[in-house]
Amino acid sequence: MGGDHGPGVVVASALRFLAASDRVDLILVGDEAKIGRHLGSADRTRLKIRPTTQEVGMDEAPSKALRGKKDSSMRVAIDLVKSGEADACVSAGNTGALMATARFVLKTLPSVDRPAIITAVPSLHGHTHMLDLGANVDCTAEHLFQFAVMGSELVTAVEGVAAPRVALLNIGQEEIKGNEQVKQANELLLRSGLNYVGYVEGDGIFLDDIDVVVADGFVGNVALKCSEGVAKFVRHSLSTQFKRTWFSRLAGLAAMPILKQFRRTMDPRRYNGASLLGLRGIVIKSHGGADEIAFENAIHIALKEIHANIPKRIGEQVGRHLDSGHYKAIA
Amino acid sequence: MGGDHGPGVVVASALRFLAASDRVDLILVGDEAKIGRHLGSADRTRLKIRPTTQEVGMDEAPSKALRGKKDSSMRVAIDLVKSGEADACVSAGNTGALMATARFVLKTLPSVDRPAIITAVPSLHGHTHMLDLGANVDCTAEHLFQFAVMGSELVTAVEGVAAPRVALLNIGQEEIKGNEQVKQANELLLRSGLNYVGYVEGDGIFLDDIDVVVADGFVGNVALKCSEGVAKFVRHSLSTQFKRTWFSRLAGLAAMPILKQFRRTMDPRRYNGASLLGLRGIVIKSHGGADEIAFENAIHIALKEIHANIPKRIGEQVGRHLDSGHYKAIA
Repeated sequence: MGGDHGPGVVVASALRFLAASDRVDLILVGDEAKIGRHLGSADRTRLKIRPTTQEVGMDEAPSKALRGKKDSSMRVAIDLVKSGEADACVSAGNTGALMATARFVLKTLPSVDRPAIITAVPSLHGHTHMLDLGANVDCTAEHLFQFAVMGSELVTAVEGVAAPRVALLNIGQEEIKGNEQVKQANELLLRSGLNYVGYVEGDGIFLDDIDVVVADGFVGNVALKCSEGVAKFVRHSLSTQFKRTWFSRLAGLAAMPILKQFRRTMDPRRYNGASLLGLRGIVIKSHGGADEIAFENAIHIALKEIHANIPKRIGEQVGRHLDSGHYKAIA
Repeated sequence: MGGDHGPGVVVASALRFLAASDRVDLILVGDEAKIGRHLGSADRTRLKIRPTTQEVGMDEAPSKALRGKKDSSMRVAIDLVKSGEADACVSAGNTGALMATARFVLKTLPSVDRPAIITAVPSLHGHTHMLDLGANVDCTAEHLFQFAVMGSELVTAVEGVAAPRVALLNIGQEEIKGNEQVKQANELLLRSGLNYVGYVEGDGIFLDDIDVVVADGFVGNVALKCSEGVAKFVRHSLSTQFKRTWFSRLAGLAAMPILKQFRRTMDPRRYNGASLLGLRGIVIKSHGGADEIAFENAIHIALKEIHANIPKRIGEQVGRHLDSGHYKAIA
């Protein structure tokens, strides 16, 4: 029921997903009548509706949603993961409420202090993964270190990269670079056994050959949103230029196939789907503004994480680093 | 002597600047022989060389530069501002060393706690100014507040905007948005009398109608570098697409004038020149990779700040807010 466009987009993307994927069933959680209307006469063989009576608003306070909305589509979808009826939950709803509810219902993995949000972002070398994207502000060095372990394991499990290149997001201006947390996390990472390549600055996210970029949730969120903003700004400026005169319209026509190919490279829909990492279950957050192609991508990410058994692998890796004694658990 | 390209670019841009601007003299500070070679037979009427024997390396520790390089081009250029022989200093050198030296030689304004770095960035509405860009990590609410006052006054003085729209960079994920410093700065700004429009997220820097974006130096630096990275990534992807096949090369030829116009809109050279704000003198930092057009832009920014008497105005404004008693001075 979440997202800017409501159940229409989710239902359409569910049908697209089922057409493309064998041996996967979907449960649509939400207002039965509304979902039914969007389903129409579609084949419901591998599709169930789980009716709920409440919805979490996109701007609702997470604590309020958690206390007062026990029959919301969001809560029930996560309950289904907890009970084992579902293997993963995909939602385009309120991020704060989704994280709070997932944390409350599923719990964090035993060795993980704080769950984090991770997504893939396009880069010159294909793409990179970045975390945390806003679940945690004011992270300690140990938090950043755990994010690195989780991100590295995700990329190994889902993409088959044996030793993902991990970097810490930092700035180059201060005498001894960055703030205290980042400097200490750097020390922890240097002796971690991860394939740690050191600091990266903001531009490096998109230009350097890196698999995992680690940042505090405040910084990571700003970095992600900035990149979305610049991309929108570029698309807008380009299309304005191509519409200015009759000559530029003609040129735009000639350039259309190339511009389309270019847009595909940058298409944020191909990257839609952020994972809530560090929980005892799989929860994927779709962008609120996702269309059916974008939301379908988020379902595919969930499927990959199911096949890769992400929560178990993350738990083992973080636990292993904790046991190795080269960094201390956080109180 | 600083920057990635050394004195060649600086000399060339100085000559361009002199050709475009009446009644301004320039002093080139650095290695006399090298500068002389680049000047060749150029007219030296409004141009002096101030010879120095040392250079600050681009990766040199600021404290080392400050102690050991008293006859560096950077130090002497700032000394000239201090003594009044120059009205402003423009440098493409090591940012950390430039800030440390400027702070040490010129001192901060009496009412200012920490100088900050500000620059203009392109946006859908023309451009916006963002600070701090890396001079200060771990800022308090009071620091952020002072940045807002300084940024607002700069935009008023240099661009003639009576009440610049000021926003605080934040994230939308946390229950009560953002971290403690930002929330407290929000409170200070709400009762400041500035034209404060509230929080902005990363994408809003480039999409919203805002004149001043205020952030901690770590966050602001990441935001700026991210935008540079995405812009480079876009330019690279576009040109790759237009070079793929003979058809796309032809289409690229047709689209050339439009793409050129588009690149002009986004051209980082038009935005080159970050101001060190809050000091008792004008210091402009050019991007290390600046070419002669970009560096010339930085000199024009210096000239604008001279005409607007920026240090005096900033000092008065920050002092006025301090006197008004609605926020406390920082120890």
